[in-house]
Amino acid sequence: MNKIRATVWNEFRQEKSEEKVQKVYPDGIHNAIAEFLDKHQDISVKTATLDEAEHGLTEQVLDETDVLIWWGHLAHREVDDAIVDRVQQCVLAGMGLIVLHSGHESKIFRRLMGTSCSLRWREAEERERLWNVAPGHEITRGIGDYIKLSCAEMYGERFDIPEPDKQIFISWFQGGEVFRSGCVWERGNGRIFYFRPGHESYPIFKDKNIQKVIVNAVRWAAPRIMQDTKGCPNVKEPIEKIGGI
Amino acid sequence: MNKIRATVWNEFRQEKSEEKVQKVYPDGIHNAIAEFLDKHQDISVKTATLDEAEHGLTEQVLDETDVLIWWGHLAHREVDDAIVDRVQQCVLAGMGLIVLHSGHESKIFRRLMGTSCSLRWREAEERERLWNVAPGHEITRGIGDYIKLSCAEMYGERFDIPEPDKQIFISWFQGGEVFRSGCVWERGNGRIFYFRPGHESYPIFKDKNIQKVIVNAVRWAAPRIMQDTKGCPNVKEPIEKIGGI
Amino acid sequence: MNKIRATVWNEFRQEKSEEKVQKVYPDGIHNAIAEFLDKHQDISVKTATLDEAEHGLTEQVLDETDVLIWWGHLAHREVDDAIVDRVQQCVLAGMGLIVLHSGHESKIFRRLMGTSCSLRWREAEERERLWNVAPGHEITRGIGDYIKLSCAEMYGERFDIPEPDKQIFISWFQGGEVFRSGCVWERGNGRIFYFRPGHESYPIFKDKNIQKVIVNAVRWAAPRIMQDTKGCPNVKEPIEKIGGI
Amino acid sequence: MNKIRATVWNEFRQEKSEEKVQKVYPDGIHNAIAEFLDKHQDISVKTATLDEAEHGLTEQVLDETDVLIWWGHLAHREVDDAIVDRVQQCVLAGMGLIVLHSGHESKIFRRLMGTSCSLRWREAEERERLWNVAPGHEITRGIGDYIKLSCAEMYGERFDIPEPDKQIFISWFQGGEVFRSGCVWERGNGRIFYFRPGHESYPIFKDKNIQKVIVNAVRWAAPRIMQDTKGCPNVKEPIEKIGGI
Repeated sequence: MNKIRATVWNEFRQEKSEEKVQKVYPDGIHNAIAEFLDKHQDISVKTATLDEAEHGLTEQVLDETDVLIWWGHLAHREVDDAIVDRVQQCVLAGMGLIVLHSGHESKIFRRLMGTSCSLRWREAEERERLWNVAPGHEITRGIGDYIKLSCAEMYGERFDIPEPDKQIFISWFQGGEVFRSGCVWERGNGRIFYFRPGHESYPIFKDKNIQKVIVNAVRWAAPRIMQDTKGCPNVKEPIEKIGGI
Repeated sequence: MNKIRATVWNEFRQEKSEEKVQKVYPDGIHNAIAEFLDKHQDISVKTATLDEAEHGLTEQVLDETDVLIWWGHLAHREVDDAIVDRVQQCVLAGMGLIVLHSGHESKIFRRLMGTSCSLRWREAEERERLWNVAPGHEITRGIGDYIKLSCAEMYGERFDIPEPDKQIFISWFQGGEVFRSGCVWERGNGRIFYFRPGHESYPIFKDKNIQKVIVNAVRWAAPRIMQDTKGCPNVKEPIEKIGGI
Repeated sequence: MNKIRATVWNEFRQEKSEEKVQKVYPDGIHNAIAEFLDKHQDISVKTATLDEAEHGLTEQVLDETDVLIWWGHLAHREVDDAIVDRVQQCVLAGMGLIVLHSGHESKIFRRLMGTSCSLRWREAEERERLWNVAPGHEITRGIGDYIKLSCAEMYGERFDIPEPDKQIFISWFQGGEVFRSGCVWERGNGRIFYFRPGHESYPIFKDKNIQKVIVNAVRWAAPRIMQDTKGCPNVKEPIEKIGGI
Repeated sequence: MNKIRATVWNEFRQEKSEEKVQKVYPDGIHNAIAEFLDKHQDISVKTATLDEAEHGLTEQVLDETDVLIWWGHLAHREVDDAIVDRVQQCVLAGMGLIVLHSGHESKIFRRLMGTSCSLRWREAEERERLWNVAPGHEITRGIGDYIKLSCAEMYGERFDIPEPDKQIFISWFQGGEVFRSGCVWERGNGRIFYFRPGHESYPIFKDKNIQKVIVNAVRWAAPRIMQDTKGCPNVKEPIEKIGGI
């Protein structure tokens, strides 16, 4: 069996500049995610970060990526438009994309959604429950009625996204807000999952249920049919077809 | 009653440079569309074209536009990204957008869809039938089972678009192709209608049924709720809310 | 202008048998709803109840109904299947349907959804917030970021419904649950709105915001195109069409 | 690896009473379908027919079915409502359902859709092309741009179905019609695929591409997560939860 080739992309700035972030993710959020993904025999993992050449997302890296996981926070604007174009083309051709937490404002997510992807937020170390509204979906395999987080950043509606193809999770927050925390869409041949949990200084990605969802999502987002070519046809049909089908 | 303020945007190049286009649309496609819209008492019309300052789409023009109709063909790339940003913001805030025919490759349509919007095509003066698959929808008011065009350019699947919120028309072409010719989506607070028919040198926009659909679509796409502000909130909620709802 | 003809249907049992329900709705929930609808000049209202002949939903009544509002609670099973068939046919032909609160388990709603429409619930007089996730939609006209209810029955996910065409409201409950409280679907030519709030002994339908949503929904659900016939074509096409279009 | 357990259900009447049907499917359509499914190592097949006890769909048979394939034509009304209820419960609990051709009017399909599922039709041995509009979907694996049938019954729009979750195939017919020939929906935890091709006396199910689609669909429709229980919760939450999440 061919392994699913996941690439975890991280902005990787706050882990170097902020002590409290460094404490939680000393090797960077990308490596924390890569570590738990790597424990699964059907998944192989690489990482890439903003400050590498081409943000680590060269054509070769993307050609060898089935599912790209995206974490960004403060430096969305520094991501080169040409790389955003390239990632978009790969998604349209069939590559899966998992966008985590503050990645909601990344260029690539907004590009694929066509909307502002804005929302409300609050950092008050409050409790969150992610209700599972799609118990038959691959992404919720092994998850019960809800996931409980005891200390989370709040993200609240209205979340400016196109209507999801399917709603997977809806969050409840202690302070009175709700949020569409797990949403899936298809664009071109590619599958996209937005997953709300995560924070640079709360250890959300060490939670076993959150890890389980991300592993499930990698398996779900992997392309079903390997396409021969990246990109979609924009072809002129021969004129002689008329009359003869 | 306030009139619906429609603005018809046109690339307006081929009508000046190509004789056969000029013959069909001597005053430009925008004026041909404006003319039949203007006959309806509930609609007021303006036009704007590529070669005007800011492509005719200044902030003031857009502030006074409820529904923007878009025709472009050969010069999509010449549309300034800053103007595309501006139009996108207006759609997200609630402005309606109707994209006609070759506008499928316009920057603004691709921006809002997030996909390549590519397709197959053929110019063979063939017959087309647009089947009405949404007989209860405002856009098909007064249209029977199908619209017949005796001489059309073919557009064929696969059309690389996000799954429409609702399918309105599906076309049959003499040569053996089908196409999702009428599709609606919502993005932010705005309504979007893509309508396939049209060609720079076939008199499609003089067809009474095609005109009827565009008039219907203007009424459908007009914002339902006038928003105080353009754009969506990206707000930090006060921390004191916790505990007290 | 023709008025929108609304018919409010009520089971009308608990108001007669339970004192605490009678106190809140002495004339029945149907009349409480009819009363606030009737204040709007563009809406005319009738009522119908379970214990009338044909449950008050004769062919003539339905022929003269643009939007049917449905409240039921304990006697869903007593609704005659033949009447359910009749209502379904009307919805498919274009009649709007608004299903309130415990109507989620009504035969007509389950018939149109195809699912069990089951959910979790709790009566604990807790606080609820209905977040507006569709600020551009007709149904939320005049509603701000959310509606606050200080004493509500809880309805919680998972709500077993087909993915809504558009999510309108999502509820937050004090006890830790969320719920897709406002959902729209189209079936045939008809528009359907499910709206969660309501309870037989909490005065929810006296809340100004809840009333506003129901008025908006009546306007939204009214048929866009009056159909000549109820029902959809099941027709055999003439064979001579082949070859000649 | 556990095999996917497919059950092929057939009305199995015309094969016994009409000579021209018998010629094409001497052992019944169900056995023709079972035969090509059975060649795949990951699929095990059973059959069931209308005239067996409980139509061959006992609780035990359904408990051991991952994907049910449905063919019916003239005797839809003879299917017992209690069995339709049972099949519906299984779909909601996660069983896949593939509805073929004239099964569009079956009780089970109409039950799950909530609409009339009516359409136009014509038997004129005309050519059909099924355009693949979802080249990245599991169901179209190994299928190119379109499937060509040289002699098909025509099914034409408007097809009265809820908007599909995703459009898979759209058909072109020689006589001038189009049809949404491949559609998917989810209801409860179950996946549903409607596939248009088929006819009792044209050898459609012997076509290699049609067989490929049905095999793909069996794999796609198999439940992703095995549910402990059939049916969805309708549970009263304990009151003590309030305040403590």
